[in-house]
Amino acid sequence: MFYPAERLRDFTCLFFEKLGCSSSEAGQIAAVFLSAELRGIGSHGLIRIPDYYRLWKAGRLNTNPSIKVTRETASTAVVDGDNAPGMLPALFSMKTAIEKAAACGTGWVSCRNSNHFGIAGYYAMMALDHDMIGICLTNANPLVAPTFSVSRLLGTNPVAVAVPAGKQPPFVADFATTPIARGKLEVSVKKGEKTLTGYVQDKKGNPTDDPDILRKGGSMLPLGGDREHGSHKGYCLAATVDILSAVLSGAGFGPFVPPSVAYLPLPPEGNGKGTGHFFGAMRIDAFREKHEFTAAMDKWIETFRNAKSADGKPGVLIPGDIEREQEQLNHKRGIKLLPAVKGELNDIAAETGMDMKL
Amino acid sequence: MFYPAERLRDFTCLFFEKLGCSSSEAGQIAAVFLSAELRGIGSHGLIRIPDYYRLWKAGRLNTNPSIKVTRETASTAVVDGDNAPGMLPALFSMKTAIEKAAACGTGWVSCRNSNHFGIAGYYAMMALDHDMIGICLTNANPLVAPTFSVSRLLGTNPVAVAVPAGKQPPFVADFATTPIARGKLEVSVKKGEKTLTGYVQDKKGNPTDDPDILRKGGSMLPLGGDREHGSHKGYCLAATVDILSAVLSGAGFGPFVPPSVAYLPLPPEGNGKGTGHFFGAMRIDAFREKHEFTAAMDKWIETFRNAKSADGKPGVLIPGDIEREQEQLNHKRGIKLLPAVKGELNDIAAETGMDMKL
Repeated sequence: MFYPAERLRDFTCLFFEKLGCSSSEAGQIAAVFLSAELRGIGSHGLIRIPDYYRLWKAGRLNTNPSIKVTRETASTAVVDGDNAPGMLPALFSMKTAIEKAAACGTGWVSCRNSNHFGIAGYYAMMALDHDMIGICLTNANPLVAPTFSVSRLLGTNPVAVAVPAGKQPPFVADFATTPIARGKLEVSVKKGEKTLTGYVQDKKGNPTDDPDILRKGGSMLPLGGDREHGSHKGYCLAATVDILSAVLSGAGFGPFVPPSVAYLPLPPEGNGKGTGHFFGAMRIDAFREKHEFTAAMDKWIETFRNAKSADGKPGVLIPGDIEREQEQLNHKRGIKLLPAVKGELNDIAAETGMDMKL
Repeated sequence: MFYPAERLRDFTCLFFEKLGCSSSEAGQIAAVFLSAELRGIGSHGLIRIPDYYRLWKAGRLNTNPSIKVTRETASTAVVDGDNAPGMLPALFSMKTAIEKAAACGTGWVSCRNSNHFGIAGYYAMMALDHDMIGICLTNANPLVAPTFSVSRLLGTNPVAVAVPAGKQPPFVADFATTPIARGKLEVSVKKGEKTLTGYVQDKKGNPTDDPDILRKGGSMLPLGGDREHGSHKGYCLAATVDILSAVLSGAGFGPFVPPSVAYLPLPPEGNGKGTGHFFGAMRIDAFREKHEFTAAMDKWIETFRNAKSADGKPGVLIPGDIEREQEQLNHKRGIKLLPAVKGELNDIAAETGMDMKL
């Protein structure tokens, strides 16, 4: 069933108000959820509302937070998210990074004591309106084993980078540091299909095509898949994301990231607070006249778009192309919700006394 | 044959003096070459001296450069490398980033009009002595095709990140954004062996195990290998390196990076100047008390080092482990030079009138 974006936004907003958020904060959170839905990243959309609800019911989510800068220099800050829904510390942190960049060229914020924040690309893209390059990294629930290991020590730790262009739409990369997102494994499980090798390994470290292996002690592999194909590089990248997000801020690192679902226990205390994120904003004109930069970026995009395709392959995509097309389509056609998701959301609406039903 | 590091350093230093560098600059360049040799990355060591020599003979390398900051803010700078051997603009740029970080928390420098600069890790590691995290990116000769394409538009564009620890040695990641380095293909060609699939494709975009395919119109693949295994993520990463290094500084981007060998023609003019690099320095205490950070980083390293190994695999490595072991070994044992390399270097020594022979 298809819903207008506005309706899903209202539903999400009302839900977070019922959890105790102010209407302004609930609206800000809803905007991030809707951006995921519109951009075709439904895995980070309303399907996750039940997870937030259960974390909140378990007393593991603070909907009346005091988010603040705990340390700063001219170009940096550390933010404590006070265990809020991750969107609020993330929005606060990225705004801080943008303010710092306006004042001294670049701004860099490491954030602790946060939670799952939706799509990283949302925060990176906030920089675009300010003629800045935006960067956003986050650590996440440990599911990924470093090269040679079977221990789940890293999350799918995404990297998002948004770069403004001129006549061309912006370059927006937002990618996990694993070959695929965890959500794709779930889809294969639900369809009863095998997955490709190179995504996961069993609990002894053997290759497998069983998409359900995470429930059997298995783990995801870093980008690259195996050592011969550069999994140590995916591991380096995910590790860098973890260090900048968590070791720099004092968040839980690696295996100590708190789960974003309530059915998994909290990690042992004393290893950092909450989930960690890292944000960057770089003013274009700190480096180059804006018109020169955007002209060069347009040429970069045109050069790549006009590259020769491999036999039988479509044209080269610029990062952000697919999501932008999805956004246009979903605005026009409406956003699809699976019946099971709709049912669960309506149950939650009833439980929380929301005056709305999907 | 094995040589003491000191002897190879003197040789390299003398060579760059013969090319017109001051003895101070030649010494700085030699230190970068030797770091590559000591760390076991011989592909970026003395084997490349003949390339620099031929570029210089062709008038394509400026050994009497005026390297300068052309634009700056409190936390940023753009450096013009004046077509010098890449080590000189890179050292200048990373020093500038470190000075900026000392003053305002972080420093970020984009550098144009440079050349091949050796190993990226060298510059990232410069931050360690200042209790800073160091970052270094560079674009490089176009050999890599973006996902779905057969056009060589990107270099192997490496990412280097150095993070100080406390009792533990530092975390030093330095990795190309391709499954393997180009040098490994050359080794397979010389040995007459096939390579694994997932590294390169033929000129139509078909998988191949021919390591010599780059000479037949083929191209290297981004980290991830194919679309199903996340090559679009490797492409995003290499693209980000290219944009920060070149679009931000005004260097040649993508296919317009000048070759680091004289037998390939220069790219058409009007698409940026020279090779581009990007440097970052982040003061640890801008984010967290130094002793807290180093204790957390030690714990991070210990956690990963103690992870459970997969069946039949060695222990988990921390980025930098292998290079550190190599460095200790090469200091003790000496550095191995292949007879062919030695011969070529001695020819160059004779040609340039160096008062030294290997």
